[in-house]
Amino acid sequence: MSKSGYFVSFEGIDGSGKSTQARLLADHLRAMGRDVVLTREPGGSPGAEDIRKLVLEGDTDRWSPETELLLFTAARRDHLERTVNPALAAGQVVICDRFADSTRLYQGLARADLRGLVDQLHDLVIGQDPDLTVLIDMDPKIGLSRALARGDGEDRFESFGGDMQRRLRQGFLELAREFSERFVTIDGNRPVEDVFADMRDVVGARLP
Amino acid sequence: MSKSGYFVSFEGIDGSGKSTQARLLADHLRAMGRDVVLTREPGGSPGAEDIRKLVLEGDTDRWSPETELLLFTAARRDHLERTVNPALAAGQVVICDRFADSTRLYQGLARADLRGLVDQLHDLVIGQDPDLTVLIDMDPKIGLSRALARGDGEDRFESFGGDMQRRLRQGFLELAREFSERFVTIDGNRPVEDVFADMRDVVGARLP
Repeated sequence: MSKSGYFVSFEGIDGSGKSTQARLLADHLRAMGRDVVLTREPGGSPGAEDIRKLVLEGDTDRWSPETELLLFTAARRDHLERTVNPALAAGQVVICDRFADSTRLYQGLARADLRGLVDQLHDLVIGQDPDLTVLIDMDPKIGLSRALARGDGEDRFESFGGDMQRRLRQGFLELAREFSERFVTIDGNRPVEDVFADMRDVVGARLP
Repeated sequence: MSKSGYFVSFEGIDGSGKSTQARLLADHLRAMGRDVVLTREPGGSPGAEDIRKLVLEGDTDRWSPETELLLFTAARRDHLERTVNPALAAGQVVICDRFADSTRLYQGLARADLRGLVDQLHDLVIGQDPDLTVLIDMDPKIGLSRALARGDGEDRFESFGGDMQRRLRQGFLELAREFSERFVTIDGNRPVEDVFADMRDVVGARLP
């Protein structure tokens, strides 16, 4: 008998609370008796974590946008092969903090003409997207102050100012329209437990 | 005034003497007063050398053929951006020990259906080949004993047995026919100075 799991990604600007919500969903589903793999990108497998270090450490101009995109794509391929797809094949729920939508957005904003290359590489070597993507939508003023307060050292993607945060929020909302069949947008400008209650209901209604 | 350099790659099985011939050509052209950059793949720029370490160290099954191909492609993109193309733009001669033909051959032999993906990635993010590729053709029995005697530690690609070495030699000869407009094949089964004399004449006749 072939099993098939369910693949949920969380997306949102830094400080939106997406990592917290991903963890809360994992805890909730485990308490309900589901087998859950909680993972993240870039990273999520030993090889992909090594590539993550290579990309995120060092100067921001260490890699060109194209090389960075190739490295992220290599990491995603490894993550899928070693972590995500074996879990899905075993019937587990995979919850991933960021996935290909972050690449579509961040690499596309790094240089406007790069979105086409992102899509071509995705079609060529990735070829899959989550069953459900939860966008935690957040006022960038609140998101930015949360991200800066956290100060976790990997500040490549945290060092954008307020204008960039607004463009990123807008970009995520555009992705939610482009991939409306799998995106659900949740208002993140509320207490964690209210966001969680909405998100849990949305995921619960879709989970097989 | 726009300058334009000349890009020569050396290919061949391990132990064929291609690295020695690449170095001898660099020395010769420098003695003739040319500006020369001698480089290698995988590697050839600080970022690409870091990616090289990631790919070549560890177990042979650390990366799938697809992930390994993406990492080599990222390294090649960085090498072109940071080392090869700036030198060509400055009018220099770039001599590279292995380039994309090694990827076409080694990744293609790792799994027969991978050559198509190699070509698509090359078209998408590399898009250039050397002006001249010198294939040092070598009897695999001689090449293998030379490679094993050297024992340089990076033995991922050196650990193939005699049968694989014969397939690789055959594969390089097929690439030389496929890309006959830029390939020149030199008989490497002779003393180093005889191989060099032939190679020097071939390159000299083509160099602008």
